[in-house]
Amino acid sequence: MQQHSISAKYESGMHFSTDVDTFSIDTDSQEEDKLPVGPGPKKLMLVSLAGCTGIDVVSILQKMKVPFNKFSIQVQATLGQNHPKTYTEVRVHYFIQVDATHHEKVHRAVQLSEEKYCGVMAMFRSFAKVELSIHFL
Amino acid sequence: MQQHSISAKYESGMHFSTDVDTFSIDTDSQEEDKLPVGPGPKKLMLVSLAGCTGIDVVSILQKMKVPFNKFSIQVQATLGQNHPKTYTEVRVHYFIQVDATHHEKVHRAVQLSEEKYCGVMAMFRSFAKVELSIHFL
Repeated sequence: MQQHSISAKYESGMHFSTDVDTFSIDTDSQEEDKLPVGPGPKKLMLVSLAGCTGIDVVSILQKMKVPFNKFSIQVQATLGQNHPKTYTEVRVHYFIQVDATHHEKVHRAVQLSEEKYCGVMAMFRSFAKVELSIHFL
Repeated sequence: MQQHSISAKYESGMHFSTDVDTFSIDTDSQEEDKLPVGPGPKKLMLVSLAGCTGIDVVSILQKMKVPFNKFSIQVQATLGQNHPKTYTEVRVHYFIQVDATHHEKVHRAVQLSEEKYCGVMAMFRSFAKVELSIHFL
């Protein structure tokens, strides 16, 4: 059984520095008077979602031998209004530049990430409505 | 309605750099031959959880006028075995040094984060069993 573990240390203000394997991630409140030293923790969930489905799509396109230029993923999420505030609607935009003959394969790669591989997206689907769209550059 | 938005740009290998407000977060696969340049994206969800409940506990203890030294949060999560791999069990350990007369207030602060304020924990509860424990140093 695979286990993941992280350790967050309180620094000052609302700033925590978190050890993730050999890396350190700073999080901070965005609502204090002073400039934050890291992103708000909730938004890291959106980073997690983009990074997870991004790895899927890249690795599937590589297996399909589909070359691509420029690939980016934008995630837009709506927060509920009542405490505890959770993401209720999430839209994932894939922007990618590939030859038009490969558009169908890109759709298939995104669909495989959505339905089969992306654990983070599966977790999001248990609390939010998640919609995906692909934009060819 | 509050909206959060992030933008992840594909760099190379499985590396994405993601803009979150004024910050940039690198994520990478941990399963390639070469050394990753950032943490695995899924683990960022655990960083998000620690940072979110951490801000709650610090701000509640401040409102309660409870001074504390050394505060850290460890999150241990078990991944399911089948694709898409999601976190199934999550344990959040709070390590904190406070005067023994304030132990009850720390319990109350953690409980308020758990039940009322921490949106990330609420999201986790929709897909995983989440257990909390407090360790006084």
